[in-house]
This record gives sequence, structure tokens and C-alpha cells, in this order.
Amino acid sequence: MMDFSVNAVLGYRVKQATPFVFNLHAQQCAGQAITAETVRIEPEMPAESWTMPESGNRYFRLIAPPGGFKISYSAHVRLDHPTEAPNAVHEIPPGELPLSVLTQLYPSRYCQSDRLDRFANRTFGAMPPGYQRVAAICNWIHDNVDYVAGASDALTSAYDTVSQRAGVCRDFAHLGIALCRALGIPARYVSAYAWRLEPPDFHAVFEAFLRGPSGPGWYLFDPTRMAAPEGIVRIGIGRDAAEVAFCTQFGEMEFDKPEVSISGPSDATPATTQAVRTRDT
Amino acid sequence: MMDFSVNAVLGYRVKQATPFVFNLHAQQCAGQAITAETVRIEPEMPAESWTMPESGNRYFRLIAPPGGFKISYSAHVRLDHPTEAPNAVHEIPPGELPLSVLTQLYPSRYCQSDRLDRFANRTFGAMPPGYQRVAAICNWIHDNVDYVAGASDALTSAYDTVSQRAGVCRDFAHLGIALCRALGIPARYVSAYAWRLEPPDFHAVFEAFLRGPSGPGWYLFDPTRMAAPEGIVRIGIGRDAAEVAFCTQFGEMEFDKPEVSISGPSDATPATTQAVRTRDT
Amino acid sequence: MMDFSVNAVLGYRVKQATPFVFNLHAQQCAGQAITAETVRIEPEMPAESWTMPESGNRYFRLIAPPGGFKISYSAHVRLDHPTEAPNAVHEIPPGELPLSVLTQLYPSRYCQSDRLDRFANRTFGAMPPGYQRVAAICNWIHDNVDYVAGASDALTSAYDTVSQRAGVCRDFAHLGIALCRALGIPARYVSAYAWRLEPPDFHAVFEAFLRGPSGPGWYLFDPTRMAAPEGIVRIGIGRDAAEVAFCTQFGEMEFDKPEVSISGPSDATPATTQAVRTRDT
Amino acid sequence: MMDFSVNAVLGYRVKQATPFVFNLHAQQCAGQAITAETVRIEPEMPAESWTMPESGNRYFRLIAPPGGFKISYSAHVRLDHPTEAPNAVHEIPPGELPLSVLTQLYPSRYCQSDRLDRFANRTFGAMPPGYQRVAAICNWIHDNVDYVAGASDALTSAYDTVSQRAGVCRDFAHLGIALCRALGIPARYVSAYAWRLEPPDFHAVFEAFLRGPSGPGWYLFDPTRMAAPEGIVRIGIGRDAAEVAFCTQFGEMEFDKPEVSISGPSDATPATTQAVRTRDT
Repeated sequence: MMDFSVNAVLGYRVKQATPFVFNLHAQQCAGQAITAETVRIEPEMPAESWTMPESGNRYFRLIAPPGGFKISYSAHVRLDHPTEAPNAVHEIPPGELPLSVLTQLYPSRYCQSDRLDRFANRTFGAMPPGYQRVAAICNWIHDNVDYVAGASDALTSAYDTVSQRAGVCRDFAHLGIALCRALGIPARYVSAYAWRLEPPDFHAVFEAFLRGPSGPGWYLFDPTRMAAPEGIVRIGIGRDAAEVAFCTQFGEMEFDKPEVSISGPSDATPATTQAVRTRDT
Repeated sequence: MMDFSVNAVLGYRVKQATPFVFNLHAQQCAGQAITAETVRIEPEMPAESWTMPESGNRYFRLIAPPGGFKISYSAHVRLDHPTEAPNAVHEIPPGELPLSVLTQLYPSRYCQSDRLDRFANRTFGAMPPGYQRVAAICNWIHDNVDYVAGASDALTSAYDTVSQRAGVCRDFAHLGIALCRALGIPARYVSAYAWRLEPPDFHAVFEAFLRGPSGPGWYLFDPTRMAAPEGIVRIGIGRDAAEVAFCTQFGEMEFDKPEVSISGPSDATPATTQAVRTRDT
Repeated sequence: MMDFSVNAVLGYRVKQATPFVFNLHAQQCAGQAITAETVRIEPEMPAESWTMPESGNRYFRLIAPPGGFKISYSAHVRLDHPTEAPNAVHEIPPGELPLSVLTQLYPSRYCQSDRLDRFANRTFGAMPPGYQRVAAICNWIHDNVDYVAGASDALTSAYDTVSQRAGVCRDFAHLGIALCRALGIPARYVSAYAWRLEPPDFHAVFEAFLRGPSGPGWYLFDPTRMAAPEGIVRIGIGRDAAEVAFCTQFGEMEFDKPEVSISGPSDATPATTQAVRTRDT
Repeated sequence: MMDFSVNAVLGYRVKQATPFVFNLHAQQCAGQAITAETVRIEPEMPAESWTMPESGNRYFRLIAPPGGFKISYSAHVRLDHPTEAPNAVHEIPPGELPLSVLTQLYPSRYCQSDRLDRFANRTFGAMPPGYQRVAAICNWIHDNVDYVAGASDALTSAYDTVSQRAGVCRDFAHLGIALCRALGIPARYVSAYAWRLEPPDFHAVFEAFLRGPSGPGWYLFDPTRMAAPEGIVRIGIGRDAAEVAFCTQFGEMEFDKPEVSISGPSDATPATTQAVRTRDT
């Protein structure tokens, strides 16, 4: 069990009344408990909240009047992610996958697993299936793709990254997801507050659906190796980044660079080398 | 209220035990009642069923042993799709959309609304919002895209179709969805048994989320104009075709051309010119 | 006959010896005479010149030592572009095209005429062939594509522009070329100093191969409508922008925004409404 | 010096008068002498010939009347391709390349070297430059791309092949060219009659511009490893396949599968392991 404190401050300016939908609340789910939480909007204005049943993503919407506003979110989060020996975590044959996770096998906007089928199978097909194969995918991405801010944009997809070989956390996650799906491993995108990420920012990682000693579940992977998986505080899960923007607005706006921070256990705590799973099933 | 009888017969051959997931059952939902239904698998084998809560899609999975097998599905379906005057059906401002439909505003694998934003707004942005604008999108597709079997393939997306200008029902639906989303109208893909489709086959149409006299809901559109909207028996709904394949298999197989048929009211019944909505909310 | 004075000043900084190839000299060809010309490089350094026989493009190469350098080009150019009545200019059937222009019918990096075949034929196929059809293509581009600096980048091609609907002169020219080629009209890219372009800069237009009263030849088109065709001073011609960069360098560099200017006849001179051809054959 | 006999028989059927342009004559150039040659068209009809000065490609055009026709080409060709020790063949720094070959450094329709820059440099950038680096590119393609007839089509480009990992000789050549250009090595596409190709067909290879003991020149590479480089009888050279189709027609047609054959020295002759260059400069 580890306790974290997360904060995000976002500032926007609009010229006319503009709807905004935010997804920046930490999820409340098995293994991730919110012990305290505040959202402040300045100036105050009404906001509507909704939690998507199938994902647990928490949205809130406001209609910003002309002028500026600021949203400050802070939460205390207790994570209880089990860890397991990587070698004890296996892939699940398609005939045994819960039908509810099939959705995370399909190609999506930024994860065109259908176009990367042969690449994935040529590169990773001969490896023994299991956690270590997904780790090998992450290693491949880490070794073959440069982390370069500005090298990609909102249109960049896994199909581009596999040949252009540069991107940011979002692109790394998309490529990991696409390669997993091409191998028949359900995988999904996770936006998160990420402990030890430098510089602090919103982060993107992915989860793969595997079977460990305590049964099937979602395991965390970070191909950027920039954060500690056991300190991933989940905000949104979805097929890819298209589904978990932290802010969606319907109109023109200006924004300030988000201020994001997360503090956790003492810096001396070593990061785990175990497989980290969530308690989602 | 209209009664339909649908049938599908699918044949496959595999060399080794192969998992198959089918999504060919008609949905059971408000406005679409299954009054009788049979599935026969020859040779008999165990199958597992599951209905996805958020979509109502009905899946069943079997593991086909080496050799051939045949699935025959037939159902009696009673449709009770309300119709409304097109001019009474309006778009919903983004600040008023139920947050649960936001998912159908995001770009997806085959419906890259993010890349068609300017095209959509230049072409349809100045039109008065409402049912008629979505109808105008369908008219544009019908007038500017050729229906040509074989002109597209499993990789073809709306982004291709808007410039290549040829495709089949799936491509027509993808383009309609992408253009709606680019205009801020939630839209989703529907696979269906389609009354009066010639030649009979599985069909693809789309639904847009609008507000009519009886409140917000999903309205049916068929940019191919090949089927009668009031005779659309829904099988699957999803972000796009990636999510509603009628058959997903995990291994190599050979297949026979599916035999699909649907019979309904007398051929003399005229098709409606009204807006057809579903009872989904 | 019209006299123009063109100037370009380019500044670069490199950290190590770096080869640069420039293509910023005005062509010397029938209808475009250089009456005076100077190139100054500061600091002085050796440079090598070469004119490509098949295009007339004039290149020069230098190897810049570490530090900064500046190139100043200026020329007096006399243009003698014939003008003809648009209605007297016709397309040439493929069986009668000189075989030497077939190259300009093929798809190229940024002008994927092969992918725009159906679009071109659906949109322009029914028009009477001739100069006016190419003018209609230019009108379509002008009416349907927004001129937006920054909306495109070095990877943007005609296939993107036809659906993204925004770009700069280079993108407008690429789309014009691709649509012409798809209709069987040879077309090529032209980089130029352009009279009356505001703000002054390097410009891009295109030429189509047609047959006028004085025989077959290349006719100038500017789908941006930002420059006067009779005041186009050609620098480079090629299949598309890939072939006529004004600067190609082999290594990292920093550069200043180019200063480009062109002065010509009195501002009161009205621009022609005639077809403008070059004397190339 | 080696003697080859090549033959090609092509049959077409058209419904209306249709222009055809063929590029199936072997080039006549230094190192490739045509000692005898016949073209027969049945039924006889007029044809026009043209050789492109900058490439040496030989075209002929005819306007086929309604009905069928057949073209039979046969030639005796004497090849005199020098061979050199691979280790004696070096890359040429961009500051020393003849300006006339810069064209073959630019991205083209099917060889988007601009989009593969980082991939090429990450994968091959650290190798010592020279013939062996181009050979390493060919080895990489051979090892990572499956030769699968039907896996690609006329729209497939190097950018696709690098991630889809399947194609035919044309795709292999495109990828080799794109990777060379991304590394600063001029490279061009070659269509050819290819000795020992099984089954016999038109073939595609590529040439890279390097400097050997006898000076700079074009060296042959075949990433498919399906033909013997010293037995490549060149038909056309160009930026990529867009420029060297063996048949371009302007209208609808039906065609028979081409019959192509080439015979050469005794089958016992071992293929060279040396670098094979052309006498082009």
C-alpha cells in the first residue's frame, strides 16, 4: 500500500461561452482508493459529473463564460497494486479470454493493430508468450523509438511511430498497445498521474490483459521507462488517447501549460522489478 | 410495428482447433423485440454467449475443431421504430449532450473525424443544424462516392473514402460517422439485417444522436439508400466496423459466402420518408 | 515584354562544415532572359554551378565552414510570356502527347494522382477538356482549400490537402498538379519569384501542358490567385516540391527568414486575364 | 562479358482505340550492347519510338484499334558489367556528389525517404559507409520483409512496406531506395529482365551511386536475392516504379499474363559475390 498526493492546475481563456469536459479525476476502483479530494473552479461555476460505468472514467463538464478560469484538482490516493513474479504471468489464449475484453483487441484510431500484424508477428511471434513478451515489446520500443518532444502531433498513430521512430509517452503507449493487440493480447490506454516522472506532467502508459497467480487481470507497462509502474494513479482508460483526453472543449480557447505534481513515498524507495497489476478484472 | 424474419447461414473450414466469436444475433432492445430465435451449429459443439452491457451486442464464441462447421441463425423480430417529422429533429449543443454519448464523438480507427474537421465544416458547417444536416451529409456521400464492390478493403477508412470516392456500405457509413463527429454530432456504426437490400447481405448503416419531439435519441441513416431505414434489424453497434465484425476468428480459415435473408411486410409497403429513430436513449 | 528585378537574401549558421545546394537562380530560357545577375556570398567561398539539361534548373553548391554565411542573389529578368485566349487552348489526347512529357503524368511524392483518379474524374471529368478545365481545377482549389500558413508541413501531400482542406502555395500547386495528371494532363511544379505576391516570398505555382494557337506548350496556373501569372519568374521546375527546394543542406543548420523581393511594371498595370504560356516546348 | 537472350510476349484486348506506351526494350548503353533485336506487333500497326536522353529509357507508343493485339520483343544482349571487390567501393560525401545525381536523393511517390529518415539512421547510421552498408540494407530487407505475391498493390509504398513487412520485388526495391536516400546515398529504380529469376517475369532491382576503384558509378542491388546481379538486363531506370511501368495505357483494357524469358550462360556458372557496377556515370 502506498500513499500519493496528486495535484493539477489548469488555466483557460475563452471569448464566448464554451463547454469543457474534463477527465482529470483519479479513478475510484479496486486497488486505487481516493482518501480525500477537492476540485476548485475559479471563478465558481456549476459543473456536472459523470462516471462511465464500463471504464470508471470520471468526467465533469462546465460551460465556461467568456474570460478566464482555472481548475485546481487535488487528491490523496492510496494505491494497492499487487505485484507478482513476471514469470508467473501468462498470456490467455483467445478461446479463454473473457468476452468483455475483446473490445481491447480491436484496432483503434491510433493503434492500427491490423496494419502491424506481420511486423508484430515477425518481431515477437517466436517469443514464448507471457508477461515477458509484453516486456520485450516495451524494450523494443524503448530501444528503437526516440523520446522527442515535438516529434509527433495529435494525428500521429502507432503506424507512423513504427516507421518514424520518434514520439512521446502517448506514442510509446500507442505502439505498445498496437503490437499487443496484433499478437492477440488485449491492451488499453491509461492516462495517469505518474510518480517519479520528470518533469512532472500527465503521463500515458498501457495495460495488457494477462493471467497471473491470482487470475486474469490488467498489468501495467510503461515503454518510456520514465515512471515507476507501482506509482501510476489512473485517470482514464480507453482504447487509445482519442478516448481519454484530460480536456475536451467545444470552441476556441487559449490555455496555460498545465501544472501537474505527484508526491509519494520517500525518494529512497526503490522501484519494483515485479509485474504490477491492477485490481480490475 | 413491423415483423421481420431474418436468416443467416455461415460456413467455415479450419485445419486446427480455432476460436470463433460471432456477433450475428439481433439485439434485444427497446423497439426491437425478438419473438423467436434459433441458432444451430453443425456439427453440434459447445458455445458461450455474452451480451455487452453498454452496447447490447450479443456475442457467442465456440472453438471449432478441425474440419468444417456451419452456423444457421434465424429470428423473428418485431420492430417498433418511431418515426418523426425530419424538421422536428434537432442537433444537441455539446454542453447539453449526455456525457455518456461523448464516446461517439471521438475519432476511431475508420472514422478519423479529427482529420476531416475542416472538410466537414467547410462543406456542411453553414447549414442549419438538425436532422436535415445529417441527411445532407448522406446525400453528399450518395452523390460523390461510387458504390463499387471491391474498391475498398479492410484497411480503407473514411479518410481514404473522402478522396478515393468509392466503397461499399461500410465505407459509406464510416464517412457519414466521421463527418457527423467532425460537426459535433455523436454518431455510431450499426451492422444490420436490412430489409429490401438487394442483393441480400449483411448491411452497415449509422446512427446519429439528435433530439426529436420525444427527447434525445439515436436516429438511423443509410447513405447508400439501399435499404429502408424502418426495416433495419440491428445486430451490433460500435464506434466503427472494427468493433462489430459479424465473425472474428483466431487462426486461419476458409469460408463460404454468407447466405443472408430478411423478409418483412408486403413488397407493396412504401418506405417511409420520415426520420426513423430507435428507442435507445 | 516586361522587366523585373528580383532579390533574395538568405542567411545560415552551421556548427561544422556543411554542404549546401541552392536552386535560387532564375532560369535562362526562351521567354525568360537574364539581363544582369549577381550572387554574393559573405564570407567569400568557392561555389560550383550546374544547370540540369532536362529542366534548365540552375544549382550551385558550396561547403559552408563553421559559422555564419549569407547569400545575396539579384537579377534583372525580362519576361516575354505569350498570352492567348483561354478558349483557344486545348488539351492534347494522350496518343498525341510528346513522349518527353509523359514523365509529368506520373504520380510523384506529393502529387499522388493515382489515388485521386476517381475524385478528379467525378469532379472534372464531365467538363469540356481544355484550358478552362484546368482553370476550373484552380477555382475548385481556391474555393475549397483555405490558405493557412502553418496548416501543412513538409510531409503534406495532395492526398492530404484534398481532405484536410488547408495549406499554402506549395499545397495548392501539388493538388492542382495531381488533379491534372489524374485527368491525363501533364503538369509540373514551378518555384518562382512572383510579382505582386503579398507578402513577398518564394512562391509555388504549376504548369500544365496544353496546345494553343502556336502549338503545344506549358501554361502557367496559380490556384492561390495571389500572384500575376505573367510576372512569374521561374526558378525551378520539377515533378513536385521534392525536386525544387531552393536550399538543400546536408547537416544541421540555423537559418534566417529569407528576404525576397521582386519589382516590376508600375503597380497600375492590370494583370492579364489571358492564358499565359511559357516558351518552353 | 556475358551474352543473354531475352523475350517478352504481351497480349491485350481493347474495346475502343486506345493509346499504349511501352517501355520494354533493353537499354542500349555502355556495358549493355544490343546485338540483335526485333519487335513484332500483331496485327501490324504504326508505332512511334523515343529514347529519353537523361535516362536512356526506350519507349514506343501505338494506338491500338478495337480488338486484340500482341507484342513480341526479343533481343540478344551483351552485358559487360565490371565487378569490383565490395570493400573497395565507398560512399561519396554529399559535397562531392555530381550535382546531376542529386535528383536521386529526393523522396518520390513510392520511396518516401523523408519519412524514413530516423528509421534509416537509427538502423544503419552507425555502420561504416560504403557498399557493405547498402548490402546491409538489402540483408535487412531480405530478413525482415516477406516476399508474398498479392500482399501489396499499386498503391503500396516503402513507407507501408517498412511496417507491413510483405511485398514483391517492386516493394523490396522501393524500400532499398528509400533507405539509401535517407542516408544520403543516391539510389534509383531499375526494371529489368533478370537472369535466373524463378519464375521468369519482369523484375525490379535498384542501383546506388557509389565510388569504386574506377570512379563513381551506379551499383546494382537486389534485396530479393532472386536474381544474379551480373545478369540484370536493364529496361528502364527512374525515381521509382511510377516512372518505369513496362506498359502504360490510356483507357480500359484486358491483358494476358506476360510471358517473359531470359537465357544466359550455362546454369553451372556461379553467380558473382563481387560488387556489380554498370558503366553509367
